[in-house]
This record gives sequence, C-alpha cells and structure tokens, in this order.
Amino acid sequence: MITSQEFVERMKSLKPNCYMHGELIQRDDPRMMVAMKDILMTYDMVDDPRFKDILVTTSHLTGNKINRFTNVHQSVEDLLAKQKMTRELSRLSGTCIQRCMGIDMVNALSIVTKEADDKNGGKTEYHERFKAFLKEFQDKDMVGAAAQTDVKGDRMLRPHEQADPDLYMRVVERNAKGIVVRGCKVHTTVGPYCDEMIVTPCRSLTKEEGDYSVCFSVPADTKGIHMLIEAANPTARKALPAEVANHGIAHSVTIFDDVFVPWERVFLDNDPQLGARAALLFALYHRHSYTGCKPAYTDVLMGTTALIAEVSGIEKQQHVRHKIAEMISVAELVYASGIAAAHTSTKASSGTQVPDVVFCNVGRKHAGTNIYHEYDILCDICGGQPQTMPYEEEYADPRWRPYLDKYFMRKADVPPETIHRAFRLAQDLIAGPVTSNMQIAGVHGGGSPIMEDIAIWGSYPIEEKKKIARHLAGIPETPKEPKDKK
Amino acid sequence: MITSQEFVERMKSLKPNCYMHGELIQRDDPRMMVAMKDILMTYDMVDDPRFKDILVTTSHLTGNKINRFTNVHQSVEDLLAKQKMTRELSRLSGTCIQRCMGIDMVNALSIVTKEADDKNGGKTEYHERFKAFLKEFQDKDMVGAAAQTDVKGDRMLRPHEQADPDLYMRVVERNAKGIVVRGCKVHTTVGPYCDEMIVTPCRSLTKEEGDYSVCFSVPADTKGIHMLIEAANPTARKALPAEVANHGIAHSVTIFDDVFVPWERVFLDNDPQLGARAALLFALYHRHSYTGCKPAYTDVLMGTTALIAEVSGIEKQQHVRHKIAEMISVAELVYASGIAAAHTSTKASSGTQVPDVVFCNVGRKHAGTNIYHEYDILCDICGGQPQTMPYEEEYADPRWRPYLDKYFMRKADVPPETIHRAFRLAQDLIAGPVTSNMQIAGVHGGGSPIMEDIAIWGSYPIEEKKKIARHLAGIPETPKEPKDKK
Amino acid sequence: MITSQEFVERMKSLKPNCYMHGELIQRDDPRMMVAMKDILMTYDMVDDPRFKDILVTTSHLTGNKINRFTNVHQSVEDLLAKQKMTRELSRLSGTCIQRCMGIDMVNALSIVTKEADDKNGGKTEYHERFKAFLKEFQDKDMVGAAAQTDVKGDRMLRPHEQADPDLYMRVVERNAKGIVVRGCKVHTTVGPYCDEMIVTPCRSLTKEEGDYSVCFSVPADTKGIHMLIEAANPTARKALPAEVANHGIAHSVTIFDDVFVPWERVFLDNDPQLGARAALLFALYHRHSYTGCKPAYTDVLMGTTALIAEVSGIEKQQHVRHKIAEMISVAELVYASGIAAAHTSTKASSGTQVPDVVFCNVGRKHAGTNIYHEYDILCDICGGQPQTMPYEEEYADPRWRPYLDKYFMRKADVPPETIHRAFRLAQDLIAGPVTSNMQIAGVHGGGSPIMEDIAIWGSYPIEEKKKIARHLAGIPETPKEPKDKK
Amino acid sequence: MITSQEFVERMKSLKPNCYMHGELIQRDDPRMMVAMKDILMTYDMVDDPRFKDILVTTSHLTGNKINRFTNVHQSVEDLLAKQKMTRELSRLSGTCIQRCMGIDMVNALSIVTKEADDKNGGKTEYHERFKAFLKEFQDKDMVGAAAQTDVKGDRMLRPHEQADPDLYMRVVERNAKGIVVRGCKVHTTVGPYCDEMIVTPCRSLTKEEGDYSVCFSVPADTKGIHMLIEAANPTARKALPAEVANHGIAHSVTIFDDVFVPWERVFLDNDPQLGARAALLFALYHRHSYTGCKPAYTDVLMGTTALIAEVSGIEKQQHVRHKIAEMISVAELVYASGIAAAHTSTKASSGTQVPDVVFCNVGRKHAGTNIYHEYDILCDICGGQPQTMPYEEEYADPRWRPYLDKYFMRKADVPPETIHRAFRLAQDLIAGPVTSNMQIAGVHGGGSPIMEDIAIWGSYPIEEKKKIARHLAGIPETPKEPKDKK
Repeated sequence: MITSQEFVERMKSLKPNCYMHGELIQRDDPRMMVAMKDILMTYDMVDDPRFKDILVTTSHLTGNKINRFTNVHQSVEDLLAKQKMTRELSRLSGTCIQRCMGIDMVNALSIVTKEADDKNGGKTEYHERFKAFLKEFQDKDMVGAAAQTDVKGDRMLRPHEQADPDLYMRVVERNAKGIVVRGCKVHTTVGPYCDEMIVTPCRSLTKEEGDYSVCFSVPADTKGIHMLIEAANPTARKALPAEVANHGIAHSVTIFDDVFVPWERVFLDNDPQLGARAALLFALYHRHSYTGCKPAYTDVLMGTTALIAEVSGIEKQQHVRHKIAEMISVAELVYASGIAAAHTSTKASSGTQVPDVVFCNVGRKHAGTNIYHEYDILCDICGGQPQTMPYEEEYADPRWRPYLDKYFMRKADVPPETIHRAFRLAQDLIAGPVTSNMQIAGVHGGGSPIMEDIAIWGSYPIEEKKKIARHLAGIPETPKEPKDKK
Repeated sequence: MITSQEFVERMKSLKPNCYMHGELIQRDDPRMMVAMKDILMTYDMVDDPRFKDILVTTSHLTGNKINRFTNVHQSVEDLLAKQKMTRELSRLSGTCIQRCMGIDMVNALSIVTKEADDKNGGKTEYHERFKAFLKEFQDKDMVGAAAQTDVKGDRMLRPHEQADPDLYMRVVERNAKGIVVRGCKVHTTVGPYCDEMIVTPCRSLTKEEGDYSVCFSVPADTKGIHMLIEAANPTARKALPAEVANHGIAHSVTIFDDVFVPWERVFLDNDPQLGARAALLFALYHRHSYTGCKPAYTDVLMGTTALIAEVSGIEKQQHVRHKIAEMISVAELVYASGIAAAHTSTKASSGTQVPDVVFCNVGRKHAGTNIYHEYDILCDICGGQPQTMPYEEEYADPRWRPYLDKYFMRKADVPPETIHRAFRLAQDLIAGPVTSNMQIAGVHGGGSPIMEDIAIWGSYPIEEKKKIARHLAGIPETPKEPKDKK
Repeated sequence: MITSQEFVERMKSLKPNCYMHGELIQRDDPRMMVAMKDILMTYDMVDDPRFKDILVTTSHLTGNKINRFTNVHQSVEDLLAKQKMTRELSRLSGTCIQRCMGIDMVNALSIVTKEADDKNGGKTEYHERFKAFLKEFQDKDMVGAAAQTDVKGDRMLRPHEQADPDLYMRVVERNAKGIVVRGCKVHTTVGPYCDEMIVTPCRSLTKEEGDYSVCFSVPADTKGIHMLIEAANPTARKALPAEVANHGIAHSVTIFDDVFVPWERVFLDNDPQLGARAALLFALYHRHSYTGCKPAYTDVLMGTTALIAEVSGIEKQQHVRHKIAEMISVAELVYASGIAAAHTSTKASSGTQVPDVVFCNVGRKHAGTNIYHEYDILCDICGGQPQTMPYEEEYADPRWRPYLDKYFMRKADVPPETIHRAFRLAQDLIAGPVTSNMQIAGVHGGGSPIMEDIAIWGSYPIEEKKKIARHLAGIPETPKEPKDKK
Repeated sequence: MITSQEFVERMKSLKPNCYMHGELIQRDDPRMMVAMKDILMTYDMVDDPRFKDILVTTSHLTGNKINRFTNVHQSVEDLLAKQKMTRELSRLSGTCIQRCMGIDMVNALSIVTKEADDKNGGKTEYHERFKAFLKEFQDKDMVGAAAQTDVKGDRMLRPHEQADPDLYMRVVERNAKGIVVRGCKVHTTVGPYCDEMIVTPCRSLTKEEGDYSVCFSVPADTKGIHMLIEAANPTARKALPAEVANHGIAHSVTIFDDVFVPWERVFLDNDPQLGARAALLFALYHRHSYTGCKPAYTDVLMGTTALIAEVSGIEKQQHVRHKIAEMISVAELVYASGIAAAHTSTKASSGTQVPDVVFCNVGRKHAGTNIYHEYDILCDICGGQPQTMPYEEEYADPRWRPYLDKYFMRKADVPPETIHRAFRLAQDLIAGPVTSNMQIAGVHGGGSPIMEDIAIWGSYPIEEKKKIARHLAGIPETPKEPKDKK
C-alpha cells in the first residue's frame, strides 16, 4: 500500500491531458487537490485506528495486505465490510468517497472475464489478462475511473442505429498488437486524478453491436485521451475553516480519440451478451456501494438537521422529530437493503461474490427517489438563513462581527461562533457549489431510478407472484403461463 | 405436534365465553372456522413438503420437534427462518397468518423473565415459571393471543392519572395463590380461538404504576374473561369458489372481569421498568414478524395487479410496470429490513435472539405508511370493475351468464371465467369485507407509524450523527454534549 | 318540480328490469330505497331554507322554476352555484349525491347537438330534438343516468378492432323510425332508480367508428335494457341510529340487448369526431362536479378525524393538526380549481357555459390521487378501534353495555354514547360496506388520474412553455417548432 | 412613472451602506446590476405592448397612471391582474420578480393604518400618514423592501422573553419628532437596491410587547441602517449568452442601529394586536403573490423539462409526459388557488381588497411542499449532464468545440448549439449559483409550509366540519361545542 503523498506524486508524473476553463491543468492543480481529497483519505486512513481493520484486507490473489478499495469480494463478509467502510469513510467528508468507481469496475470484470473464457471453451484468455491487471492494480494501490456512460445520442435509437456510429464507444480497428477505440464517455468521476481508465459498455447490446461490446483498461494519460473537466469544490474558508470546505469532487468528459489498447488490457471484445452483462454487473456493484455511501450522506444531512434544531432550541418539537425520523428511515432502509443483498449474495464462476440484484436495486432506487426530499427537510428546519447569510468576510470584519454575533444568537447558551459554524455547514450542504453535485448524483449516480426499475423487472419473479394470485382466485395454471427468468 | 383437527377439538372443549351479534357462540361456529383457517394451516403445513423444513424445528428447551410458531429464537438463522416462514405461509391465504401473536409474546417474555430474575438477584423465579409454561406451550402446540393493547382512556393521561383506574389492565389483589387482574384489552386477534391469553403492558410506565406492570398467561376460557367478537370474513362463494374466500380473521374486545391468575403463570409483577420493556419487546418481535407478513401481502396485491394487467392486455405498459415496481420496492425494502434486523441481532441474557430495533422499526413503518398506497395502485390498474360487478348469483344464472361472459371479455385469448375469477379476487382484496381489516391492520398492527418513530428515537444514535455534523462544521466537542442512550 | 314521494311513485311505475342476488327486484326494494336516499334528498331540499336558494333556479328554456340538477348552465354564476350546491348537499349524507350524472350528460349534449347542426349546415335537427328532451327532463324533474363507460374489451385495441364488435355500444340497425343499439355499459350509477338512460361514447373514435359514435336517451325500462345491480349500502343501525347509515348507492351493469331508439331521442349518429367530443364534454362537466363533491367528502373525513381527535383528547397535538391541515389542503385546492374553472369558463355555440379544461382536470386529478391518503389519515388518527369494535348488538345488550361504556371512555367529560357514535361513524367511513365504493369511485369516478393526464396533455399550452425555455436559453425560434392546439 | 435608467440614477444617489465580501459597495456595482435586473424589467415593460395593459393602472388615490407594483388593490379584478402580471413577468427571467415585496407591504399597511384609526376613535392619524406616503410611493414609482423577518433568537421564546431584547425589532425611544428603533431584519430581498425600507412585525405579539408592535417606512440609506449583502447571480456567459444568465437576486441582513423614524412615517406603534395583524396581512398578500410567481417558475422548469425531452427524442415517452403532467398540476393548482382567493376576496374598511386566507395559504403551501420535487423531475429527465458538462471556455475553444458538437448530439436534426444551450439552461436552473436561492425561497419565501398550516388553522371553519360529522353520527349538539372564529 502506498501513502497519499506517493499517490499525488504519481498523479504529477502523468502526462497532462485535462482541460478546464480554457487551460491545460496539472493533476495537482489546487482545484484538483480539493477534489481528490476524499481519494487521499482512503490512503491516509489505513493507518487510522478507527478504520484500519476495515480498510485493510488480504488479497485473495496474492495474499498481500491490500487496501479494500482494490479488493475482489470473495464472501458475504467482504461485501458487508465494503458497505460499512463506504458508509464510515464517506461521512467524514460530507461528499462522495469516489474510489468505489474503480473497484466496482474491477469486480464486474473479474466475473465477466471468467464467464467469457468459460463460454469460449478456453479459447480466450480474458481472465488471465484480468488477473495480471488485478495484481498490478492491487500492488500499486491504484485508483480506477469507471468510464462507462456513453454520450448516447438519440435516446430512442440503439448504438448501431445512431446517425454517428461513434456516439457509443466502439472498436474501430483490431490488429496484432491490440485494438483502437473511439468514442466519448461522460460523468467520469475521478477521471482527472485516476491511474487507470477502466471501460465497459453501458447498456444492453444486440448482435449487430460486436464492436460496441468491448471492455478494457488503459492508463489515464494514454495518447488520445483528452479530459474536459468540471469540478464541484466548496467555497474556501478563511475565518471559519471547516472540514466540509476541504472536500470537493471532479468529473470529466473523457474523449477517446482513436486510443490504442494492447491485447493484454482488452478484457472483452465482440461479445454483445457479455458486454451487456459487464454493464449490468458494474451497475450492480455500484448500486451496492450506494447502499453504503447514500446512508452516509443522509447521516450528514440528518446530523446537520439535528444540530441546527439543537442550536435553535427546537430539537424536541414533534415536527422536527418526525422529519428527522423520515431521514433515519431513508438511511436505514437503504443500508438494510445492502445488508440483505450481501446476505443473499451468490458466487460467480470466478469466485467473486455477487450481491442480490433486487435488494441492491430497491435500495439504490429508494435513495434516489428520496434525495431531494432530504434536502427539503434540512431546508425546512433551517429556514432561509443558509441562503441569505452574509459572506465570511463580513463575519471576519471587526466592524460587523459584533453585530453578527449579537443578532445570530439562538439558544442563549450556544456560543455565537457555533451558530455561525452550524449555519455555514448547512449553507455548504444546501446552498453551496457542491449542493447540486450531491443532488444530481443522488438521483443519477450508479443509475437513475428508472434504470433500477428496469433492473428489477429484469430479475424479479413476477410470474411467481401471479401464481399466488391465481391460486387465491381459483384460476388453474396452464402450460401457457410465462415463466420467470430464473 | 398436533393436527388441525385436534386443535379444533381443543377449541370446542373450551368453555364458551365469546359473544357476537347478541349470541354466545361456540368456538367452532362456522364464522369462527373461516376466521381461524390460517391458524389451521399452520398445523396442516408441517406435513407439506414445501413448508415442513421451515415450519418444523427443534426446541432448545426440550430437544423435541416443535412447530416454529412455538419456538424461542436462539440464533440469526432462527429469526431469518421465522421471517421467511411468515412470508411464505401468509401469502397462501391473502390475509394474516395470525399465529405470530402468541409466539412474539412468548419470545418477549423469555427475555423479560430472565432479566427480572437477574435484577432481583435470584429472589424471583419468573424465568423458571416461564420455562414451565413454554414447555407446555410447545408440547401442546398451543396458540396464544397477545392481549396487549389497553383501552387507554384519555390519550393525554398516563395509566395512574385516568379518571377510571381500570382503563389500563391492573392488579387489584395479590394473595397467597396468585393475583386478581381487572381491565380490558382490545384488538385481540385470535382471541376467540386461542388456547392462552398472554398479557403484558402496552406502554412505558412510571414508578406509581407498579400495579400496571404485570405480565401473565391464562387459558382463554378462564373465569372472568368475556370476549366480544368482530369477525372479518370474506363473502362466501358458490359459483366461483376460491381460496381467497376461505380465509377470514376475528378479533375480540377482551374483558378481564377480576380474573384470578395463579403465581405459576405470573411472569412479572410490580416492576414498571421491566413492564415497559415487555411491551417494547413484544412490539419488537411483532414488528419483525411484519417484515415477513407485510411483504407477503404485497406479494398478493402485486400478483393480483399483474394478473389484472395481464388479462386486460396492458401488462407491458410503462405505467403499469412502474406501479408494480413501486410495490416490489415496498415488499423488498421491508423484507430487507427484517433480514438486516436478524443479521445485526444480539443475544439477551436468556439466550433469546433479539432483532435490531432500528431495522425492525424502519421496516414496519415503511410498510405501514405505504399500505393505503398499495391499495391505490391495485385500484388504479383495476378500474371500477371490482366495485360495480354484479353479484355471483347473476353470474351463476343461465340467463345472465352468456351476457357476462360476452361483455367481460378483455384479451381475446383469456377465457371469460378467468376474467371473472381475476376480478372477483380483486374485489375480495379491495372491495370486500376483509379489505378494511387489511388496511387498518396494515397501518396499526404491531404499532402505528408514530409508535415506530418513538421506538426509533428511543434507540437511534442521533448524537453520533450530530458529532459528524460538528466535525464537518469545525465545532469543537465539549463535555456538555448529550450522549446516545447506548 | 316534484316531491320525493312522486319520484318514488314514478320509479314504482317502471317495468322491473333490475336483477340482484338472483332476483328480479322492484325499484322500491328496501335496498334500493337506501341507495336512492341521496336522490330523494335532492327533491326534499328544494323546500329547505338552507338550500332552496341554490337548489332552485329558472330554466333558460322555459322560464319555469326548476331543480338545478336539471339546469343547463348559462353563466359563470351557474357553474359556481352548481359546484357549491354539490358540496353542500353531498356532505349531508357522507356519500355521493348521484344526481350529477344526468345533468352532466345533459349539459354535454346541449353543446354537441348544436355543434353537430352547425357543422351539418342545418341539415340535422339534433339540437331541436335535444331541446324537446330537455323541456320534458326539466318539467318532469327527471333523474338521468350516464350510461357512458363501455366494457371496452382488450384495452390495447380500438372499438372497431375488438374480436367482438359489441364490446363498445354501437348502432346495429337504422330504419325509418329510429335506430337499434347493442352493447353493455358498466358502472351505471343510479341506473336502478333513474328515469332516463342517457348514452354517449366513452372515448376518442376513428373514421371507421361511425356506428360507435351515437348519443341518445331512452327511458330506463325500455325493452331490451337489463340491469344487473350492485348496491353499496351501510350496515343498518338499531341501537345507535345515525344519518350516515341511511345512505347508500347502487350501480348497474346495463345491457342494451338490441334496444330501439326513436329518432326523436337520437342526439348524434355517425360522427366520430363529435362522438368523441361528447365523451370529453361529459367528462369535463363531471370532473367539474367532482370539484364540489370531492371537497364535500373530504369535509366528512376531516370532520370525523377532528371529532375523533376531540373525544380522544388529542386535538391540539401537532401531528393531528398537521394531518388535518393536509386534508384541508386537498379539499380547498380541489374546490379552488373548480372556482377557477368557472371563472375562466367560456360559452359554447349553444350558449352553454363550459368550464376550463385544465383547471377541472388538475382539480379532479388531485382529488383522485389523494383519496386513499385521506383514508390513511383518518385511519391513523382513529387507531384500530373502527375495525375491531364489537357489533351493535353487544352495545345494545344490557349485560355488555356497562362494560362498553366503562372501557371505551376517552376524555372524561365526553359521554360514552358520544364515543361509541363517533367511532361507529368512523367505522362506517373506513371499515364499512360503503368504504370501498368511496375509495374506488374516489379514484375512478369521472375518470381515473391517467385520463386526467391525457385530458391535460390534450389542451395544455406546452409549446408556449417551451418557448419560455428557449427565450431563457437563447435558442432562436424557427418555423419548425410545433404549435399548441389552441 | 419613471424609466429604469432613472431608477438606477436614483439608486446611485443613495448613500452607500451595503457591504459585501469585505467592501462597501455602490448600488450600481455590476453584481447589483445583475441582481436588480428583474426590478428594471418592471420599469421597462410598461412600454411593452405585451404587458403594458396589465402593468399600468390608475391610482385610486390620485387618479394618475401608475405602475401596478405600486397599486393598492381595490377589486377582484385588481387582485387577478396582480396575480397574472406576476406570473407573466416572472417567467421572463427564470428567477423572482422581486418588486412584490414592497407592494405587498403597502397593501397590508393600507388596511392596518385604517383599522388602527377606527379602533382609536380617530385619535390617531396613521391612515392619513399612510396616504401621504402612498402618494409619494406611487408618484415616484418607488421600490420598497419588506424588512419583516426578525432574527428571532431562541425559537421557543417570545420577543419579550429573549435574553437580548433586541432580537426582535423594537422601539427604544419615543420623542416629539419620532421614534428610535433597534433590531435586525434578515432575508431582506431587494434591500440593496430599494428606495424604502418598509417594516412590520413578523409574528403574533402579547400585551407586554407594545415596543415590538411598530410599523414604519424609511429611506434605505437612512442613518443607522447597515446592510450586509448576499447575491445569487448566475455564472456570466461569454460564448453562449442567454437571458437566464442576466438575472440574479440579492438579499441583505439589515441592521437597524438606533434608527430615527419621524412620526410622519410611523404607521403603527404600541398595538400588539394590530402589529400581529400587519404581520399576517403582509404574509397574506405575499402568499397571494406567490400564486402568481410560483406557477411562473414552474412554467420555466416544465418548459425546460419539455425542451430537454424534445432535443433528446423522448418527449412522447409515457414517463416523461406523466412527470410533466405532475408539474402542470402543481402550477395550475397553485394558480387556481390564487384565482379562487381573488374571487372570494373581501373589502377591508380602508377599501383595500383582501384575498381569502384559506385559498392563499393552501396554494402557497402546495407550492412550497412541491418545489424540491419539481427540481427532482427536471433533474430526472436531464440525466447528469447539467452537472458534469465542461465549462463554457472549452466549448468556445476551437480545439474542443468540434468534439463537443459531435458528442453532445441527441436527435439528429437538432443543431449542436441548441443542445448545448438547452443543457446550459438546465444547468443554470438545477446546478448553478441561483439554484439554491430558488429552492430555499421556494420553501420559505412568504412563509414556510408550517406557517401556512398555522394560518389555515387560524381561520378554517373546523368546528363546522365537526358539526357535519356529528350530524352523520347522530351526536346531538350541546351548548358546549366550540365555535369557529368567524
């Protein structure tokens, strides 16, 4: 395992290919340093007594100690530990732990590469390639980006039906040494500060779409990759420095401008059925990760709501308690769904532990359909203060500070600075530059609610439920009834 | 284990003390036979290959084979098996499995009796009494009613503050042989066809309320017990007999008119703190049972919705799929919460396995706040047919049947009888004599949503969540901060 | 105007053609007398000083005094008076005023008959026929049923595509004297006790569907009409008689078995476009009626909730007030939408006043999507009592009444009979034989929420809203942009 | 009436007393010019043929032509015109029209000053003072800020119970020439660019709180007034200029540091009952204004949703239509409530038209409880693009623009710039610097949902609703029943 300082050094050694506000930026640009703060935390916390037992594990491949963010889950306990780690780390920053992107991809590929080889009767060697990659990924304690979401063009057309065939990532050339890919991936979280760009399709594919069914990984500074960056960083604090203001997040539009991938890093090619499975498996692991990070973010929102209520003297009011109980329900139902998904998980042929599809999806969906409502609750309890309070410079100004201390008082025994700090935290959460990132990622990250519905419908035993209805109704079964998929 | 026929015989042997529509009724009155059908099923199914592995277990006390509905849970697996059994049996009838009442009480008492003895330094013998009772309960394969909910009088007053002290069950005499109790319990499901009436308090109690903190069990026909019955039975079917029409449910207002309880069956007396704990523990076990039965009932509602959609030709419509996905989410989030509660369960000093409070309560609450919405969905997909269709006699009448067959057609390849059966099932569910029972029990059974909020607030680590907020806000902790309860 | 007694006599004079539970019943069968109680009220109340000013108006056709339930609305004030009358009468019974069915049909036909004549350049005489019919309808103070909803067969097929062409009402013969129609209408409220069966199509129609685009009216006992009845009547009261127990409702499946309609009563034939308009106009008037009756029913539900809270001593609790405020919001937003629809109404070529489509539909939809939630609230505040309380016979029994008086006490100063009456009212509302009728009609009556969405989409200026977006985005308009329909 | 340029000149002539980011700023600071853009629009549009008929009216006081934003409403039509004007102007900017603040205050004061004089038997001259003020306000075409919300300290204590008596605005001195006031008002929208600071209490007051029951108006640069500013301005556009990016909003924390108010501008003093009435009346007028501006903002959100759906090729998808129909329902139910409030309005003794309390409050509350949900819908349909798209500089860069044009394509016939413009509009709405202002003001502006509940409870005839319940239940009325307030 490496230190966060070593990680930053490695980032600096990559060839710059990230653009922002018209500039080609360095990976240790101050704005990137804020955005990657959560990633750095995943390195630092391996030595923290509160977290090391859960953050450090043993590689099933090498037997070495590894950071759990590079682990391929082998058991129910692994899945539970990943979920717990995600919840406990994420809430330290008030934003997103980010490093799940790579590891969720790695787990998906661990399964698909093996299934491809099984299907091909040993004529392919995807899984061996994957294991070589995994060894390096673990040994170097790497961060991977999940370059999954294609730009997708006309939403009513399939990849091969688009006016421009490049609107989904595709192979444009295959040669002795490897393949050349073209396309553009969006919403690439950690793109600007990752080691590897791990790529899979993002949807179901038809038999015409062999060129679109490609999985691979390349270093983030590979020739032909250009990243256009968006960073959601909090407003810097001077007078009232606070941890919430230290953590941001960045995403890239990631252009693959005829990028060469050597065969050693091609993990699937020309297999629409397994290409789609890779897409679904990444989504599945990522939705399971959400059952950890989303409760963490609700912890932050509910803790802030409770804190604001406390300093305002209203924490025992029935409506406040009722609203916080709503937040608790969201957090714990989502967390419960992740626990249940782990406990009903199954083993893939590769040995990788696969969480239950239905529980992951109902959990992720519940989070996604409640996120704006949780903001509504915090906003409701705060009143308008987080929006209209003066800037920090006024608070720091000796002319105005006495007024602000006098007039922002709430409960008489709470010091004025505590009031200001509590409301500035609320401001960062509901009225700051990171707010919309958390709202929008809360809905769409890991798949929008409608995608969870589709995943649920794809695996739910609805025919079994109709059988129950027929049994109660006295309708005899006939050979014509449809069957559930599994 | 006994057979259902033996159970009915035992019921007939009890002294009649149940009144309904102005009559003193027998326990095998035809209306009671319909109401107790689910109970009978719990006896019959021990021989059914689909259920016997989960329904039969081994007593930790005697080592004998017992019906799981008399088991004191000893492990995570026991809790999971109870939850699964509850879901799988409940959905066979389209109503409520009923027999959870007694076993949830028994589990609560297994803990409280031991804790009382521990607290009293061995000066009491509640747990030994309990074990003797449990042995009989298991050996005789008994059904217990949970006579818990007091009539409660003025909701703003505590038990000892009421104008009439009998508005909560209380001890009015203690003598050498036992105690005499007076009061009235309501909503006593299975009251009219149970072996034992198991009694605990239903709320928190203060030190003035020693007489109210009593737990005991007596045979259901004990002198002084009078039951006034309400039965929710489906409309009988002649032309189109169906399983849904075979199952009802009954409740009693249970008057304890100075009932004598021998000391052997007194499981707690004069201990407000543990009396309240008994109340909470029964609620906890019962809410865990709800994480099994409520998903079962959603299975029935969603299966019927899917069936109606199928015969109407609309099952692939997006809005239908979206609405069924909402039902799936309710069922599986509630089920997940029960799984999570089992997996994070702890052991009481008695050895009984205690499910997690927060997961049980968020699960039960989610069910309770969604039940009317689920009816709304089924109603929405059905249209008005379940309300306004002619009576079965018209369907059976050769003059009208051809018209009803002709005009109730939907998809051309679905036989008309299937259509009629499907809509009559929907009618039984949303527009029949059992409907309101399932709606109201869906909200209040095992505790209303507001009671779950109270339970959640009583055990949730909200101070820990405020700490997260303070950490992010840069507010230093001081010795003054409140602490979480545990 | 006639008296209610005269109306009953007229009903008795009709040829019996209603079947129920295997019997051919009389129109003054005791079960029908309960069901038609609301209709009788509309006759009786013309002499009641509280209602006569709003219930009696002047015919624009004859200048005679008429019951407003036979009026063709001529002004904003007429629409407002109709809405107000509907709210004020409906809440006297706790169920549905029923007589809106006919008058909403009459208003729709007043418009369509004129538009047909206009369109046909005076070659048809539909409007004259209509006026002759209207004169009789008003003079005889008639009750009309709206036989609108066809059985509809396969929901994915249009009328002319069905396997059986009779699954929508159609003309099977046209001759010198009139037409012969065949089909079956469902959900015919007041069918069993109306004077006239008024018929229109229930949906959009294509040019192939001329035979389906027929509007007419015939006496309810016309040869070939058979009604199969369903009645939702409350449980009769003996010990605690109450107004709520006096009012029910009945519906029929109405079979038109080759019914002859003379040309004088044919109001449209062979005009799919205006046939569809008749369907929409009836729906529009009926949804406007819902903006009166639905708030009335919420008045009943909220009044009961407040009464239960009062007698239980919890009426000032914050959660109770919050929940009642939710009910108030539903009632008054729906009522406001009807006022707004009246104030933005327009005049048809016939002179009839047409309420605004969007306001009527958002109002009706808001009611329909909240009805189950309102039941949830009343259920929540009541607790389980309305379901499990003993039957009235036990309350009347001198042996049990003292117990029931003692133990059902709540606030000490509320007499026990008041408690029993309040909870029996709640029982009739949420757990009685009429409950499902009000729930299901609450969703579907006048059109299901999805039908309101379709109506809204059919007339909302969404292109204008996109223009606003383009203006803000700086996107120039081009001639290609779609236009709003009107 | 003046021009917008004259208004800006007048602003420049005021003494600077606004502080922001540590600076004393000018009122025509570029950041203020963006924030006041909506105010300027209210001057400019009096000449716009689309708006002049509704924006220009005649003073009832002077008979002069005035801007309706200075009008005291005299009729139903005035209230409807104000509501319509507010909707039509607000949606031109995608933010808040702002100028309602002053006029809602002026209308409230027109009533209270008269009622005070009436109550005092003509011994006070508040209404004459008010009329003199109104004349100037109209003649000079002024903008007023509503300095209403006090800082409020401990939320469980009344004004006179606070540790610091200044936590609500109060009179600290009364002398021959006027009064001296001290306190701090927050959320003062338009504070930094208004002519007059109009002040009322913000809550109910007790008899001890005479010093707190003061209403007055002073010029915004009066000695002792200090404003600490917060501005929510959109990100400036260079490459893709757009109207949405031209409009922001600013608020102040407004400190009254012993400010002298001459008697001519004191509109109420030492009258807690009428002080509270002023608070309620301002809230009432402001909530009526919300029934105009809130539908306008929903117009913007729904138009953008429809535009995004159109360019993505999904506008006919059922789920998209369903979600936009939800937005339509919110917009039109809220608008309907304002129409209903106008049509059921009454006249105050001053002649001012007062909208109905219940309709205004259910409307405002419906808006407030749905605002986050509307964002959720727009976010849902957009996907993650509005958050993660590259900055405008990359779009302007000839190196990247071809890639961005190629890869952001959706429907093949929509030009790439249109796609970029549409998503940048969505970004400004859901992920920009103004987003949180619209979310938080959407909940709290004009009063939080809980305040509307309180207002509804204060005037709703709940006892009448209980009477309906008693009538249905057969419970006789007794003289003890409580009465509704009016």
